[in-house]
Amino acid sequence: MSKVENLEEHRIFDGMQYKYRHHSELLDCPMTFSLFLPNKEKFPEPPLLWWLSGLTCNDDNFTHKAGAQRAAARLGIAMIMPDTSPRGEEIADSSDYDLGQGAGFYLNATQEPWASHYKMYDYLTEELTDLVRVELGLDGPEFISGHSMGGHGALVLGLRNPERFQSITAFAPIVNPSEVPWGIKAFENYLGKTEEDWAEWDAVKLMKQHSGKRVPILIDQGDKDPFYKKELEPAKLVEAAKEKDYPLQLRIQSGHDHSYYTIATFIEEHLEFHINELKK
Amino acid sequence: MSKVENLEEHRIFDGMQYKYRHHSELLDCPMTFSLFLPNKEKFPEPPLLWWLSGLTCNDDNFTHKAGAQRAAARLGIAMIMPDTSPRGEEIADSSDYDLGQGAGFYLNATQEPWASHYKMYDYLTEELTDLVRVELGLDGPEFISGHSMGGHGALVLGLRNPERFQSITAFAPIVNPSEVPWGIKAFENYLGKTEEDWAEWDAVKLMKQHSGKRVPILIDQGDKDPFYKKELEPAKLVEAAKEKDYPLQLRIQSGHDHSYYTIATFIEEHLEFHINELKK
Repeated sequence: MSKVENLEEHRIFDGMQYKYRHHSELLDCPMTFSLFLPNKEKFPEPPLLWWLSGLTCNDDNFTHKAGAQRAAARLGIAMIMPDTSPRGEEIADSSDYDLGQGAGFYLNATQEPWASHYKMYDYLTEELTDLVRVELGLDGPEFISGHSMGGHGALVLGLRNPERFQSITAFAPIVNPSEVPWGIKAFENYLGKTEEDWAEWDAVKLMKQHSGKRVPILIDQGDKDPFYKKELEPAKLVEAAKEKDYPLQLRIQSGHDHSYYTIATFIEEHLEFHINELKK
Repeated sequence: MSKVENLEEHRIFDGMQYKYRHHSELLDCPMTFSLFLPNKEKFPEPPLLWWLSGLTCNDDNFTHKAGAQRAAARLGIAMIMPDTSPRGEEIADSSDYDLGQGAGFYLNATQEPWASHYKMYDYLTEELTDLVRVELGLDGPEFISGHSMGGHGALVLGLRNPERFQSITAFAPIVNPSEVPWGIKAFENYLGKTEEDWAEWDAVKLMKQHSGKRVPILIDQGDKDPFYKKELEPAKLVEAAKEKDYPLQLRIQSGHDHSYYTIATFIEEHLEFHINELKK
């Protein structure tokens, strides 16, 4: 018996879109994820993009709304879209959209009631990674990208695993969660009130302490995004990167907001960025 | 006061995606619709594509999932996505997904409890048309397209209004609703059991009686579509078209199913078909 259950498969462009379910031992609940594979004959060993979604999302949002499969099929990129938290009636939750299920923040919680299930960092970098490599045979080069809370996740996973991810991109990422309302609320609940414990989950703080391999970063931020100044403020990461002479490009996109319409507009350029960095 | 209320606006590619609400006097309820406009400076008088969605859909499905804005922005095509039925707690409904709200079948009902509100044909071809022309200033050439029940709608509206719509395309349309379970159920309820009353709402029957202007038709049908043989069977329309020497192209798309993934794959070719027919 395979460890993964195939829930859906659809042809799209020159590739296939799948939706899977498996039992996560680490999170102690069933988890779904979506996967796009380009044409197997043309691209037998594709690189893999990890896409991390934002608050309230699951694995469907990017899969349905970003239109990324077109460019991924053309460029020969596989894409995995995980869920954003553990799920289930027996899993701790909150009635707030920005805490609990749908808001895992891609970290390992240390505080109850969250610590027993909210281990999204380990889930992604260990359990789901093993599953994708062993069960699905995807063991090529890896990229990482994400939106908002998932942009935070992409930056944190990317900066902490520079030997693994070849390049990082993000849309409207929470770059400095320790200093903004969404992040402070999540970190106080999941990690406790000791701020030193937050540093390893904060891209600006990770950048300030950076040494070693420099994985290139591309960030798109819409100037009509209602969260731009209060929650996101990517210039803080640019500033930290400059001090380290770290390769980071921030593009402020005129007229664009926080929605999937912005992701749809620029996702092709992100996929091309990843492929071009791989070819360098 | 404008008759239309702007609920949302988002930049996407080189254009804008809007969602509107207005009070329909004909349907006697508030209705939403979505509208994409290409860059106004580059395309001040764009042609307009009417997109008619399938069972259970509203104006969001195509807007969110088809990825059509990319090609529409490039080609300079405006797109309007109406809802699929009247809506509201006081509007007749059914607990079945294929009857009542979300399943208006683009016709004018004559039977109660449906007749007082279910007038989607008149709503689209008169009230919403006037609103789009007068309030939104879109009075250029028009195309029509749709999916499944909406493919039926596109064929019926297109064939009945050949002076108005320049070209017709459809994905997995119900071409002969009088003869298949979805259509028979809808027609018996909305139109009554007298089959002669169904003919003006059936694309195969309209084709068999066709005379006058021949508006070109393109149809895509996936061969892995679970409704292909039971509900759709587009070869019936091809056969009727052949007898009339009517320009209709049916493409059977290998491996494709009934989902929006198929629409996403081929919508660009449909938009190009419409633009190319306009240039002829």
